[in-house]
Amino acid sequence: MQKTMLAAVYHGLGDLRLEERPVPVLKEPGDAIVKVTLSTICTSDLHILNGAVPRAVPGTVLGHEFVGEIVSVGESVKKRKVGERVAANCITFCGDCWFCRKGFINNCTHGGWELGCRIDGCQAEYVRVPYADTGLTPIPDHVTDDNALFFGDILSSGYFGAELAEIQPGDTVAVIGAGPVGLCAAMCAGLFGAGDVILLDIDAHRLELAKRLGLATYTINPSAESAEEAVRALTQGRGADAVIEAAGGADTFQTAWQIARPNSVVALVAMYEQAQPFPLPNMYGKNLIFKTGGVDAVHCDRLMKLIACGKLNTDFLITHRAPLNDLMEGYRVFGGKQEHCLKWVVTPPVNK
Amino acid sequence: MQKTMLAAVYHGLGDLRLEERPVPVLKEPGDAIVKVTLSTICTSDLHILNGAVPRAVPGTVLGHEFVGEIVSVGESVKKRKVGERVAANCITFCGDCWFCRKGFINNCTHGGWELGCRIDGCQAEYVRVPYADTGLTPIPDHVTDDNALFFGDILSSGYFGAELAEIQPGDTVAVIGAGPVGLCAAMCAGLFGAGDVILLDIDAHRLELAKRLGLATYTINPSAESAEEAVRALTQGRGADAVIEAAGGADTFQTAWQIARPNSVVALVAMYEQAQPFPLPNMYGKNLIFKTGGVDAVHCDRLMKLIACGKLNTDFLITHRAPLNDLMEGYRVFGGKQEHCLKWVVTPPVNK
Amino acid sequence: MQKTMLAAVYHGLGDLRLEERPVPVLKEPGDAIVKVTLSTICTSDLHILNGAVPRAVPGTVLGHEFVGEIVSVGESVKKRKVGERVAANCITFCGDCWFCRKGFINNCTHGGWELGCRIDGCQAEYVRVPYADTGLTPIPDHVTDDNALFFGDILSSGYFGAELAEIQPGDTVAVIGAGPVGLCAAMCAGLFGAGDVILLDIDAHRLELAKRLGLATYTINPSAESAEEAVRALTQGRGADAVIEAAGGADTFQTAWQIARPNSVVALVAMYEQAQPFPLPNMYGKNLIFKTGGVDAVHCDRLMKLIACGKLNTDFLITHRAPLNDLMEGYRVFGGKQEHCLKWVVTPPVNK
Amino acid sequence: MQKTMLAAVYHGLGDLRLEERPVPVLKEPGDAIVKVTLSTICTSDLHILNGAVPRAVPGTVLGHEFVGEIVSVGESVKKRKVGERVAANCITFCGDCWFCRKGFINNCTHGGWELGCRIDGCQAEYVRVPYADTGLTPIPDHVTDDNALFFGDILSSGYFGAELAEIQPGDTVAVIGAGPVGLCAAMCAGLFGAGDVILLDIDAHRLELAKRLGLATYTINPSAESAEEAVRALTQGRGADAVIEAAGGADTFQTAWQIARPNSVVALVAMYEQAQPFPLPNMYGKNLIFKTGGVDAVHCDRLMKLIACGKLNTDFLITHRAPLNDLMEGYRVFGGKQEHCLKWVVTPPVNK
Repeated sequence: MQKTMLAAVYHGLGDLRLEERPVPVLKEPGDAIVKVTLSTICTSDLHILNGAVPRAVPGTVLGHEFVGEIVSVGESVKKRKVGERVAANCITFCGDCWFCRKGFINNCTHGGWELGCRIDGCQAEYVRVPYADTGLTPIPDHVTDDNALFFGDILSSGYFGAELAEIQPGDTVAVIGAGPVGLCAAMCAGLFGAGDVILLDIDAHRLELAKRLGLATYTINPSAESAEEAVRALTQGRGADAVIEAAGGADTFQTAWQIARPNSVVALVAMYEQAQPFPLPNMYGKNLIFKTGGVDAVHCDRLMKLIACGKLNTDFLITHRAPLNDLMEGYRVFGGKQEHCLKWVVTPPVNK
Repeated sequence: MQKTMLAAVYHGLGDLRLEERPVPVLKEPGDAIVKVTLSTICTSDLHILNGAVPRAVPGTVLGHEFVGEIVSVGESVKKRKVGERVAANCITFCGDCWFCRKGFINNCTHGGWELGCRIDGCQAEYVRVPYADTGLTPIPDHVTDDNALFFGDILSSGYFGAELAEIQPGDTVAVIGAGPVGLCAAMCAGLFGAGDVILLDIDAHRLELAKRLGLATYTINPSAESAEEAVRALTQGRGADAVIEAAGGADTFQTAWQIARPNSVVALVAMYEQAQPFPLPNMYGKNLIFKTGGVDAVHCDRLMKLIACGKLNTDFLITHRAPLNDLMEGYRVFGGKQEHCLKWVVTPPVNK
Repeated sequence: MQKTMLAAVYHGLGDLRLEERPVPVLKEPGDAIVKVTLSTICTSDLHILNGAVPRAVPGTVLGHEFVGEIVSVGESVKKRKVGERVAANCITFCGDCWFCRKGFINNCTHGGWELGCRIDGCQAEYVRVPYADTGLTPIPDHVTDDNALFFGDILSSGYFGAELAEIQPGDTVAVIGAGPVGLCAAMCAGLFGAGDVILLDIDAHRLELAKRLGLATYTINPSAESAEEAVRALTQGRGADAVIEAAGGADTFQTAWQIARPNSVVALVAMYEQAQPFPLPNMYGKNLIFKTGGVDAVHCDRLMKLIACGKLNTDFLITHRAPLNDLMEGYRVFGGKQEHCLKWVVTPPVNK
Repeated sequence: MQKTMLAAVYHGLGDLRLEERPVPVLKEPGDAIVKVTLSTICTSDLHILNGAVPRAVPGTVLGHEFVGEIVSVGESVKKRKVGERVAANCITFCGDCWFCRKGFINNCTHGGWELGCRIDGCQAEYVRVPYADTGLTPIPDHVTDDNALFFGDILSSGYFGAELAEIQPGDTVAVIGAGPVGLCAAMCAGLFGAGDVILLDIDAHRLELAKRLGLATYTINPSAESAEEAVRALTQGRGADAVIEAAGGADTFQTAWQIARPNSVVALVAMYEQAQPFPLPNMYGKNLIFKTGGVDAVHCDRLMKLIACGKLNTDFLITHRAPLNDLMEGYRVFGGKQEHCLKWVVTPPVNK
């Protein structure tokens, strides 16, 4: 087997380099080594490069969303096997600590967001996955790699947002941000019985796509009209029954509570780079619930089942695909939201 | 306005007669008089004729599922107006007693199942509806009478069953009985995110229909195979994550708990004509939850919204349609489950 | 009957005057006129005088917490009767609008916080109560006026906070602020099975009282020690399982999220006079839930029952008692938190 | 260390013998061997001897409720340590299978009710405990053996019943059966905020005790009065807001649903030796929820914390105490409900 591999290494603020690194080996008894078949660039990677994730460790290989094949497992791994085709959970979790036992895996005492942040991630040829039994889910035969690629990060995040939002059948759900997580949230809102889904973004192309795919009933471009007035007009003046904020901006935070009807949930699943003013006197009596969160991706089994039975399909997100060698171009295009890029998918390197 | 009308009157065990009756008039300040546009025959009507509903009052006009137009309202009616096109709730409820305030309208101190049971119902040209503000829902312009016809009884019952079943996204839901309520329950299971829906019935035609319409992923005919084994084979040996029993037989009651996985909910929405043996020692440790219920149809607003935005459509249930004059034929066909009849819809009488 | 009465009238920023006003009369068919037996001064009254409640209308009689006797009722009042001894709900609500039907009475389309804010309140000899059927609760014979006095405002608020906090049996609950609402919240936390209750305040006397009464297991004075460290020391380093913020300061808002364990609820039941910075990046991944709220006092029946069977008793809050004539002195003492005043109770005026 | 020990061995229907058995040794890597300090006789032991537990294996040492000291642990045990004073969970569970991950430990794929049923139990000097990390809870220093003795079986069962019952603050809760589980359920109802607790039993002495201890507000002796009428008289004619059936008789099953108010939960935590008729037509429209269950004892941490902070205390249950040598006398007294015996506690054997 090869000794070194191509990998995208974070070297500090704005400094990402594609370089040769040793192929990872098993370190802990619960580890697996996975040969990466497909991986992606995620907005979280951009947050790291922007310096907005202080815990990110320079020298780390980035990337946390991937599918691959298991090539070796540690001695205490019980469920996963060499040769299995698997999709990864973006959260590393032991499954046994106080928080994990309650489903709060993002706060796992021994884990959290590790891959591509504090330990080497998947923008490489191979990746070491700790706690492989909880962190890897086998992909059923009739589910393709493409089908499964997003399930452990952005699909989980969209589901998480929809679940936090406490949607009841028939509810009108507003989703702010038509990026990958927002689009997944809109899709998952349907799983919980949403009636109308209102999608807000300033990118007309994404709005149009969402409508064409049936992910949104209505779309609002806040650069062209008042979001608050537009939502009221669609909700008998009350506001949305649930709001999922997946954009993370100063303006979108304020929009979120303004378009929410009284006594609703505002799920804040975006990662904010700045503190926001919280106008408690202005919203007094509106009795809103704000749920903040980094994804607790505990429903991977449910999501894989829903993918397998055709109730969820995220293939439309794949707008670009190129080998690992072209990753820097991927960061430029995806990071700049160019060429209507939704997700840049990374295939194994060529000419090696 | 006419003084008398054609009406189907219950005169005791097995005795239904189509006869002339006075057109109803307002009796209480909360009443409305509705001109019936469409009505139906319901399995509950058969239960009354079978003598299985002791509280049913001989001399009563049958029928409790209909749409129509309001022709007069009492002085304390606030929300409904003459001329409105409305769909009826099968439950009469005051909206203000201890039970109504908690959503338990089937146990309304002043109501419950009244129409076509204890007071004159809708298998007639006109019907008096008490508590018109809670009992009638306006039909939006782009929703047809057909679309709205079942919303207050069998669609509400199916929704009720799906809601009782505590379905979580991806769950495998078993529905016993492919009659109108069972089919509506299968449809509503999807609203709550069901993964696979397994439908059980001994009528191959109904099973096939359900599959063709996408209401069921799998179907089981218990006359041809063991329901318990078939369900286990589809659920990794565990049993269904939720069971909705909409058939009401001695065998289906036993099937219901047998096909349920441990720690699941069995929603008993059928009306049983007999007590059933409850084999507590046999099911000890399986930790099942049994929910019994006559529909608490409190979600009419949600259902109308879901119909309006296209998420629910029950038009396929209408297999037969004939004027009130032919109602006796309807009871024969619907009651005998002949001609693949799902619902017999009654239009206004002709030649009058 | 007398034509005029003594009343405390708000005339704008900081301007409260005790003056003669006409005795109120029935205006709407759902009204009742209540002769006030006991009333109180509430922190909300201070917020009005501070100018922090823009919707408060100058010229209004203040006060919204009281017990009294019904002296007349409008023609559409069904449940309440002349001569009944009643306690008031601080929220005016119709009970029938979209929000009321869901229990969100603070957002009642026809109500909300009206009494002593937008319409004349109870710091007077008589008060007109709209929607008397929902706004007044009869007091059982063996419950005294003192027992019932706080049930519709501060006890409801404390219960509301405890309910929002989603307490599970054995949880460690932190309550910030040992004022009347905070003490009621600590008491109600017990109703939901709280294990330890940690009370935080800078007033040593109030902390001692709470401990002596068994309302708190532990107390923390943030002016003497680090609240965050002290709470961690009591919770195996995790933080409180639930936090109820009943103080409303800039520091207490930050303390609230800092002492909460990851994945817990922070119930913000205080009324803030300023917007607060919401440090989303600092709390990223902690996955907290913030519930903001003006009390939805919908559980008055439960609370009266719990008072009646001895599970709740708020008599200890009454530290001062004087006739209406001395109200200005009451505002000075209560407003200045002098003489260890918890609640200043107002009795009918003397020498009239 | 000693090679043999005294143990109570089940040899088939009605056949229990106190005999010498080998001291157990570690068999699986997750095992612990515990020296038994205190154990008990439980009604479930009587069910085994009555032949009502077909899965019970002849040749097994009985007993599943105990405290003791760990004397050895297997190599994969992570949390428990030799020398720790521990209390046992009556359910053996792996903590990692599909059911365990959802908290349904009674249906653990590798466990369930094992101790004293399918593998040797604690009515002996030593006992082998599989899955020691999940099955044993350390006892805090200031909690006595007596305090902790019942926490993993009857206290857990009482808590389970109260939790199943979905009690809301102020609810009137009826508990049928004043045996150990019923009394624990009555105590735990208080944790969930019960207003009045109505206790039903035909044993006047137990009822009196419960009232004296404050576990019940009202008591009903169904041999002296109509349970249904008595409950209605205490609940404004509606019935109890929640019912916990902890007696397991044919009459008590019928009483349970009769005294329940419409739309309430009936928690069936008793072990029935016979199937019961389930009168669905008679209860049609009452919309009851029946929860059947063998205890899912997953809240041991909560219960130990509540014991430690004084919110739960079960010491009053210990009416008899004698060394293991006298166990047969214990079965006679406890089994015959003689001498007002609530629990017979077994201490280590003497004269050995």
